Amino acid sequence: MSTLHLGLEGIAVAESKISSVNGEKGELIYRGYWAEELVRDHCLEEIVYLLWYGDLPNPEQSKTFKAVLAEKRALPDYIKKIIDTLPKTMPPMSVLRTAISALQVPGESWPPTIEQAMEIFAKAPTIVAYYYNFIHSKPQHEPDKNLGHTANYLYMLQDEKPTAVKVKALDTYLMLSLDHDINASTFTARVVTSTRSDIVSAITAAIGALIGPLHGGAPSKVDDMLDAIGSKENAEKWIREQLEKGERLMGFGHRVYKTYDPRAAALRHLTQEIADYDLLLQLSLDVEKIAVPLLEEYKPGRKLYPNVEFWAAAIMRTVKLPRELYTPTFCISRIAGWSGQIIEQAENNRLIRPSCIYIGKRPTTPSHHQ
Amino acid sequence: MSTLHLGLEGIAVAESKISSVNGEKGELIYRGYWAEELVRDHCLEEIVYLLWYGDLPNPEQSKTFKAVLAEKRALPDYIKKIIDTLPKTMPPMSVLRTAISALQVPGESWPPTIEQAMEIFAKAPTIVAYYYNFIHSKPQHEPDKNLGHTANYLYMLQDEKPTAVKVKALDTYLMLSLDHDINASTFTARVVTSTRSDIVSAITAAIGALIGPLHGGAPSKVDDMLDAIGSKENAEKWIREQLEKGERLMGFGHRVYKTYDPRAAALRHLTQEIADYDLLLQLSLDVEKIAVPLLEEYKPGRKLYPNVEFWAAAIMRTVKLPRELYTPTFCISRIAGWSGQIIEQAENNRLIRPSCIYIGKRPTTPSHHQ
Repeated sequence: MSTLHLGLEGIAVAESKISSVNGEKGELIYRGYWAEELVRDHCLEEIVYLLWYGDLPNPEQSKTFKAVLAEKRALPDYIKKIIDTLPKTMPPMSVLRTAISALQVPGESWPPTIEQAMEIFAKAPTIVAYYYNFIHSKPQHEPDKNLGHTANYLYMLQDEKPTAVKVKALDTYLMLSLDHDINASTFTARVVTSTRSDIVSAITAAIGALIGPLHGGAPSKVDDMLDAIGSKENAEKWIREQLEKGERLMGFGHRVYKTYDPRAAALRHLTQEIADYDLLLQLSLDVEKIAVPLLEEYKPGRKLYPNVEFWAAAIMRTVKLPRELYTPTFCISRIAGWSGQIIEQAENNRLIRPSCIYIGKRPTTPSHHQ
Repeated sequence: MSTLHLGLEGIAVAESKISSVNGEKGELIYRGYWAEELVRDHCLEEIVYLLWYGDLPNPEQSKTFKAVLAEKRALPDYIKKIIDTLPKTMPPMSVLRTAISALQVPGESWPPTIEQAMEIFAKAPTIVAYYYNFIHSKPQHEPDKNLGHTANYLYMLQDEKPTAVKVKALDTYLMLSLDHDINASTFTARVVTSTRSDIVSAITAAIGALIGPLHGGAPSKVDDMLDAIGSKENAEKWIREQLEKGERLMGFGHRVYKTYDPRAAALRHLTQEIADYDLLLQLSLDVEKIAVPLLEEYKPGRKLYPNVEFWAAAIMRTVKLPRELYTPTFCISRIAGWSGQIIEQAENNRLIRPSCIYIGKRPTTPSHHQ
């Protein structure tokens, strides 16, 4: 007889060497390193290398890895044509899901490889930028091989080479979003892989899971809140009104973290460093300062801190990403984490096949097999 | 601390009223009825109605349901264009996954509805037929509203209205493939749904899981075996040679069923009834008769019977479906089961978020948060 575990809480479905989250202590480990330390001295490609290969690259490996990724960025014409063909009302994440599903990757369908992962990871930002420029009738830019992964993404979207501060800000966010042990989308990717399906199927499936607001969240709602608050002077009054009405404050609290989310802490640190770069960043810092004690006043003991979405919104509005691209931008980072976990699942595979408890009607006639 | 359950065996992730499998007894229940009894007196659309609404339709409801489904079969032009645009080397299931991902369904993204499910279920056979005719430069046929779901599928593929025997044979196979409690693809659909994602995302993801040979299987390999055997006279010699070499016999044994799979039993029954229709069917019956005692001789106590793939292959070759469409044909049936389970998951939803056990390196420096 099976036992019922509706949300699978407390059930481990894999042993993993890739990342580890400790929500009580506020810890996030990537392959033996504190995530928040890695982001200070490394760029996105190097952390992706770490997640996939298990070690940080030396300078030579880093250079090669970046160059190979840069070579793979351009989209085949048929992918562009598919994006042109999809209904213009289709949400960006559904377009990304469909375009990734349409990709062909080199090699056999099993087992998944790092080369295949590179193909998808390299092209995902190009898909998002191509889609956005197409929908808004903006000029298209072919990827620039001389730019890093993050800088090139901003360049394709914004028609000019981004400043170093902008790149560092978005790069840091992307590095902190790469992997987060098992979550609904990563688990989806593992279940699909467990059937010996291909990496494109697994990542397409994971994108579908990330579309759900219970998982992918709604970072753009933090933006709406910051817009509604408008200024430091207005913050306390606005927040008090929300809490008096019993409303949730967007961007505070997390299902897993019961203390300050280390990703949020690292992004907050960065925000402080570059706050003079953009007034909007200062507003986020001010709202935090005012909101945390008010939350403790209205919801004592709940320990509600700004979560990663709160600071993600601060960063993404500062680098001038449009709100409709917040979740796709998160996704182009998380594709790397999924890929690592897909490859790891394949290395020690077992078909993931739980059961259910039947609570429906029984037939009134006897079975023919008794 | 989490406990490790790699394949999630014995872990129930849902309570379900839709279908129930008892592998020890060889039982399959659809909503309170024995599946093998339902298929004698009903057609595909009626069983789909049962799975989705919980009761069999009365004649009026059946007529309306069929008519509404028939209305929804035609593909929007952009879906045809996407199929035309995909690389011709893309496997059929990847094409189906991409075309379904490109579909827009009516209504909100949450919760999933029967109307949305109808949209996808109605169009899936048209996608498969359009793809097949396109790839093979055959004439395209718009769906015929005067034909039932299965008859229309055969008509679109084979350029002529199918005989009643052909329709009954394929219809029976499709009815028996609709749902099979929780399995890897159905579970994938539920995990995606648990994030409050949309039905298109969930079904796209499930198709990805079905692509894996550990789940979707390889019914066309049974065909290869039947071709290799060729005739009743050659069967014993051929099978003995395989078993002497320690080879598996394709189409025998099942992970769950330890006795005759009720789906296989129903298809076998049908095969006996219509065996004079096609000599190929007689070969399948002969091979079973010869193989079962030989399997008992070589693998005593293993109770290896022909599984559903064995009889599925018998039926699909008899109705002259090309082998490359065996898995897509299974899929267009299973989409109905996924849809029912997606809707049920949404009715009593909890985010499915298991964990993993981290066995990687620990950082050598202390965390900043301690």
